[in-house]
Amino acid sequence: MSKRILVDCHTHIYTKRLVSLLRSRTVNPRIHTNSTDGSEKLAILPQEVSGGRTVGAQYWDVGNKVSFMNRHSIDVSIVSLANPWLDFLDASQAVLSAEECNADLEQYCHEASQLFSSSETSSEVEAKRRIKAFGIMPLAEGVHPKQVVQSLETIAQSPSLCGAILGSRGLGKGLDDPVLEPVWQKAAELRLVLFLHPHYGVGADASQPSGLWGSQDNGHVLPLALGFPFETAAATTRLILAGVLDRHPDLRLLVAHSGGALPILSSRLASCVAHDPRVCNRLLHDPRYYLGKLYYDAVAYGPEELEAVANIIGRSERYKSGTSTNAPVVNQLEKGVDRIMFGTDHPFFPPTKQDGTVITDDQTETWRSVTENLDAIDHVPSWTRQAKSSVFGENAIKLFDL
Amino acid sequence: MSKRILVDCHTHIYTKRLVSLLRSRTVNPRIHTNSTDGSEKLAILPQEVSGGRTVGAQYWDVGNKVSFMNRHSIDVSIVSLANPWLDFLDASQAVLSAEECNADLEQYCHEASQLFSSSETSSEVEAKRRIKAFGIMPLAEGVHPKQVVQSLETIAQSPSLCGAILGSRGLGKGLDDPVLEPVWQKAAELRLVLFLHPHYGVGADASQPSGLWGSQDNGHVLPLALGFPFETAAATTRLILAGVLDRHPDLRLLVAHSGGALPILSSRLASCVAHDPRVCNRLLHDPRYYLGKLYYDAVAYGPEELEAVANIIGRSERYKSGTSTNAPVVNQLEKGVDRIMFGTDHPFFPPTKQDGTVITDDQTETWRSVTENLDAIDHVPSWTRQAKSSVFGENAIKLFDL
Repeated sequence: MSKRILVDCHTHIYTKRLVSLLRSRTVNPRIHTNSTDGSEKLAILPQEVSGGRTVGAQYWDVGNKVSFMNRHSIDVSIVSLANPWLDFLDASQAVLSAEECNADLEQYCHEASQLFSSSETSSEVEAKRRIKAFGIMPLAEGVHPKQVVQSLETIAQSPSLCGAILGSRGLGKGLDDPVLEPVWQKAAELRLVLFLHPHYGVGADASQPSGLWGSQDNGHVLPLALGFPFETAAATTRLILAGVLDRHPDLRLLVAHSGGALPILSSRLASCVAHDPRVCNRLLHDPRYYLGKLYYDAVAYGPEELEAVANIIGRSERYKSGTSTNAPVVNQLEKGVDRIMFGTDHPFFPPTKQDGTVITDDQTETWRSVTENLDAIDHVPSWTRQAKSSVFGENAIKLFDL
Repeated sequence: MSKRILVDCHTHIYTKRLVSLLRSRTVNPRIHTNSTDGSEKLAILPQEVSGGRTVGAQYWDVGNKVSFMNRHSIDVSIVSLANPWLDFLDASQAVLSAEECNADLEQYCHEASQLFSSSETSSEVEAKRRIKAFGIMPLAEGVHPKQVVQSLETIAQSPSLCGAILGSRGLGKGLDDPVLEPVWQKAAELRLVLFLHPHYGVGADASQPSGLWGSQDNGHVLPLALGFPFETAAATTRLILAGVLDRHPDLRLLVAHSGGALPILSSRLASCVAHDPRVCNRLLHDPRYYLGKLYYDAVAYGPEELEAVANIIGRSERYKSGTSTNAPVVNQLEKGVDRIMFGTDHPFFPPTKQDGTVITDDQTETWRSVTENLDAIDHVPSWTRQAKSSVFGENAIKLFDL
């Protein structure tokens, strides 16, 4: 058997220039050293549990990413900036910072490929192939959609950038904002993958007396485990309901964390749409159809979850307008599997000690969060060896033309 | 083949006394006639899209429920009050109203059984068996937990009541509020099923500039399709994280809408728990274990969703403390299937015309939302005929001792 190809389509960095910017800030989002242990902490939300998470070289150092890839036999990484991206900047700063970030991402990929080519096993061509990046668009309030379109053109011309990461806020009004129409148009035309990733999570909900997460101290568990995938599900659903995928059927949208909460709720969504006079005749197809037009990472941590997502993607053709729901669907399983791609979410979920504290000197550690995601793919009961190979890397090679 | 038994464990009513109370109110929640068509509307949330939903006899009339059951060949219904329940009342009113509601629910079941026994096919004993109810607890701010415990004792003594419905707010601080401990203790001791049902949904999220649902008009789709199952997932997770299922392993908790968003996020939840120092050593088992301790309705509208939920329940024994994750699990599929039970969510999701408007005179209609849930069970690829029979009714007969 030939060696499996492993492509990590969900792996983050902060560029050094962005780190400097975050260090210079006095309000969140920022990097500060006000913690009891004196370590640098990244605080993203206005009110962060324990003042934020410990950050170190693994968040910005290219050598650290290369070491992580080698340690986990990752052949290709497609890095992306992590939240909060640029939404906290004013419009002109966001535009400038996006340009800088995209240049820095290109430089980051260049440095990584130099590290790979200096190792014994890689040629320069192979080394360049091993690292790519999602660029960043200047998505912040007050930015003109034309400037977002221009950033996509810059990204398309940048040799190491193969798409752009996308939060859920758009230009302040979400991804169903009609002003984003030229952005979808351009992304589809340029065949760039947009990586839809949660941003701030859902949870500080004013409609609940003590907030959705309550007053008990559960650390980051609830916002991360639930709030993030809730946000992703809502953003993706709004995009679908706005008809974006009807108008741009070739748009390549990669949805983080295996689609978040959306796949398991998609038949409920279809029922709610069918029963609501404001929506029932708006879309060309049953909402479940559109789940087959999306791409998904495999960052779900369990085989049963991945199998469910594949089955829900795979059934989508049944829900194309004019299709009998009893019609047999050819290659349903393959269709589902072909849209799911391995990811690690590095440098988040780092290895921990028995008591849960983070191992900061992780240069020799295998990450549990990574092996969990590898094992999940390996243990999906109904997936063939070929299906698993597709998810480990072959799907990403095709999608990103690696 | 013997006739299949069909038990509807998720079917709502408003008692006539509660309807009068809601009609008498001038602020939401209330029933009003301020709509353009003059029909009575139920407005639950402070700001309801289109002023609320049209309500009619199907919300309170016992004959209507019996007709609905007969039309859909439902053998047994376990009715429950629908949200907002009693949380909007002050403490003493909530306690009084819970007593009244439980008496009214008993009377409702009595009237239904009279209708059944007056029909040709049913004996009086059989007729009594065909209708049961979840009682209501006085869960509102300021109520003493002892009063909640007393209501459970009343419910246990009431011949037609076999459990209690439960929102996510508890006594104002959620279901992880430590003061609720005697309530869980008593429910477990009395072997009453608690039906955890979403309440207000998640979505009016202050952390998002335009709210989680944005400014586009999507009717009720987003709060119903996503906000409800998000709320359920969060409430159930908080209950698990509070150790309620460690301290009360025999608690019988039935989770609405097939567990909402929780099943598909449960391995992510496990990973977040394992990586968080505040939580990682708190529980006796991996979080996925507890999903095998819950019961789920089958109100998910799709076969792939139901299959996923069953698989995720079924794997739970793998995550019991001290179990090797490689250990084979006996009867994994059966274990999953044995905890899922048919439901309709009547009188919500009524049949509609082609343009999506509600068919109010529905006395001859078969409800699409019901046939969708029946078909979903019938079409789960991996379920045997026996598995489907379990979900259609046999599981509920065992759980509720019908």
